[in-house]
Amino acid sequence: MFEFSVKDEATGSAARTGRFVTPHGAVETPVFMPVGTKATVKAMTPEELEEIGSQIILSNTFHLWLRPGDEIIRDLGGLHKFMNWKHPILTDSGGFQVFSLSKLNKVTEEGVHFRSPLDGAPLFLTPEISMKIQENLGADIIMCFDECPALPATHDSIRESAEMTARWAARCKRAHKREDQALFGIVQGGTYEDLRAWSAKATTEIGFPGYSIGGLSVGEPKDEMERALKVMNETLPRDKPRYLMGVGTPADFFRGVENGVDMFDCVLPSRNARNGRLLTNEGAINIRNQAYATDPAPISESCGCYVCRNYSRGYLRHLHMSNEILASRLNTWHNLYYFHDLMERIRAAIPKGTLADLKKDALKYYSESES
Amino acid sequence: MFEFSVKDEATGSAARTGRFVTPHGAVETPVFMPVGTKATVKAMTPEELEEIGSQIILSNTFHLWLRPGDEIIRDLGGLHKFMNWKHPILTDSGGFQVFSLSKLNKVTEEGVHFRSPLDGAPLFLTPEISMKIQENLGADIIMCFDECPALPATHDSIRESAEMTARWAARCKRAHKREDQALFGIVQGGTYEDLRAWSAKATTEIGFPGYSIGGLSVGEPKDEMERALKVMNETLPRDKPRYLMGVGTPADFFRGVENGVDMFDCVLPSRNARNGRLLTNEGAINIRNQAYATDPAPISESCGCYVCRNYSRGYLRHLHMSNEILASRLNTWHNLYYFHDLMERIRAAIPKGTLADLKKDALKYYSESES
Repeated sequence: MFEFSVKDEATGSAARTGRFVTPHGAVETPVFMPVGTKATVKAMTPEELEEIGSQIILSNTFHLWLRPGDEIIRDLGGLHKFMNWKHPILTDSGGFQVFSLSKLNKVTEEGVHFRSPLDGAPLFLTPEISMKIQENLGADIIMCFDECPALPATHDSIRESAEMTARWAARCKRAHKREDQALFGIVQGGTYEDLRAWSAKATTEIGFPGYSIGGLSVGEPKDEMERALKVMNETLPRDKPRYLMGVGTPADFFRGVENGVDMFDCVLPSRNARNGRLLTNEGAINIRNQAYATDPAPISESCGCYVCRNYSRGYLRHLHMSNEILASRLNTWHNLYYFHDLMERIRAAIPKGTLADLKKDALKYYSESES
Repeated sequence: MFEFSVKDEATGSAARTGRFVTPHGAVETPVFMPVGTKATVKAMTPEELEEIGSQIILSNTFHLWLRPGDEIIRDLGGLHKFMNWKHPILTDSGGFQVFSLSKLNKVTEEGVHFRSPLDGAPLFLTPEISMKIQENLGADIIMCFDECPALPATHDSIRESAEMTARWAARCKRAHKREDQALFGIVQGGTYEDLRAWSAKATTEIGFPGYSIGGLSVGEPKDEMERALKVMNETLPRDKPRYLMGVGTPADFFRGVENGVDMFDCVLPSRNARNGRLLTNEGAINIRNQAYATDPAPISESCGCYVCRNYSRGYLRHLHMSNEILASRLNTWHNLYYFHDLMERIRAAIPKGTLADLKKDALKYYSESES
């Protein structure tokens, strides 16, 4: 039910375009996936996501498991029907949230004991339970349950974590039954090149239709991230899609694509949008700025989105300062459009051999700290 | 630039259908006008309002005067362009908000001294200033600046208020210069029938293209409101539109229409929506109800709106309990659609002589306290 093929390969970098097919349609890669944590990409309808070019969205197993509950979503027809999204969906495994949002009790070989961030109730998540939840949700692409160590961490601790993740990946593969879902393995290893290589080998030996790169973009310096990505590119099979989890910024897209990454997701464009930070080809602006109060120009003259075609910075600033819901809507719309549009230009530049030019052009107004 | 004509008149009540024409298009009456207080109907885009059948929207002079400022809106092309709404707009005068939202300092013959609810700054509003602000905003229909007394109030105090309102109406008419705007007079008089009649006479003697009925639906018993409406119907000219300000509920629409009212506005459907209270032909439901968590049915099987065609109560409850922006969007969408659809059925029933049947049918699931 899941097929991936590489279409064009760049010269001078590992960038490639490709395509994967799921039961809910095909996706052109490299692709940016908007995050719909609680079965909604915040502030957007499915039709709007279609209009701005979203091909696939991500939803969070952990949040939906806690509320409303995966069995309720299953009984209401699965995640696609529940949220009225007709195209592919990817769910994460819950692993990242267990380690980042919860009060941990204990990690055992069996799984993770922790406390619910909603009400403090004791909870237990294992590879098998994560598979069951993700089967109930019914996404097209699902993730193995992994152990996500906090950084910085010692070589020993990252090694143990990667080893646990590999053992759990084997259990996930055994437990997973739905043949209409593609289960991706997750590679860990922090920024240690040897552990990255080991984790890639261990995970590919188990064998999955796609591989996720976890444990990056968690605060490490960009050059360490880039070195880890190079190892990933060298050690992961080229005929399977690679998904760089939780990344990133426009500059990160180029970093990933140049190292053979096919899929990205990040809350950045929507979270930034709700805070008034808007990304454009001419750099980032904050719509709260007093100077925009009387500005009749759109967010960006070079942007073709609905928001830039119809609304002035003056109006958008007014909405934002007035805490209007429409502010979150229009700002999110613009930022997601910018991300999708940038990725579309990346897909077009790879076969033309103009990726380096595009990178230079797209990032020239972004400072190092922003990228 | 403003024309009104009555089309059909009911037998057995003063209900009528009609049509008015403005520089931004025609409006079929009776009409419900969604409230876009701060130049946005909360949670909705202009295109969505078009889709659900909004013909004209209301915006609030007081709020826009304070933020972002009427001169900024004028400089950005006026309210239509500012908010990207291509159809008619009505603005109120600011009077009601001065008396309901502000710390009053002093009412003089000249105008009202009060404190800004935003920052406590001293402010002064007069008939002439209200005209100037509304000219800057540029709505198609604007309101005279009136004095809105708090209820209950003595006959003497309501009389003085109605007299002041009449003197201010004459000043508004003199001060108003924009010929592309229709300036409506406002009738006051509380629930005193003699003062209602006096105020109607005084206001029509000044002469306006339309008349607003102020000072009702502010907490008085429904039978007192109904008696006041009967006096309004008897004393206002039949060839001019009548606008019942800030009203109301489905039952209020029938009360108004039966007494010759042509225009209504109310924040109720959108405010209710954000609180999870949804109105349907089968009565009101609160989407927070635990029973809806697993309910695959739409809000209303008999509703044809986008929300009812695409989303289950289970999903809408999940969005609401998760405080998702999409909850406010979809709930508002449904409630406004219900109000517009009800008004469309009222417009259809009047020429057919079936208004009484429609009333019985539309209100049968609503209790007295809800209507």
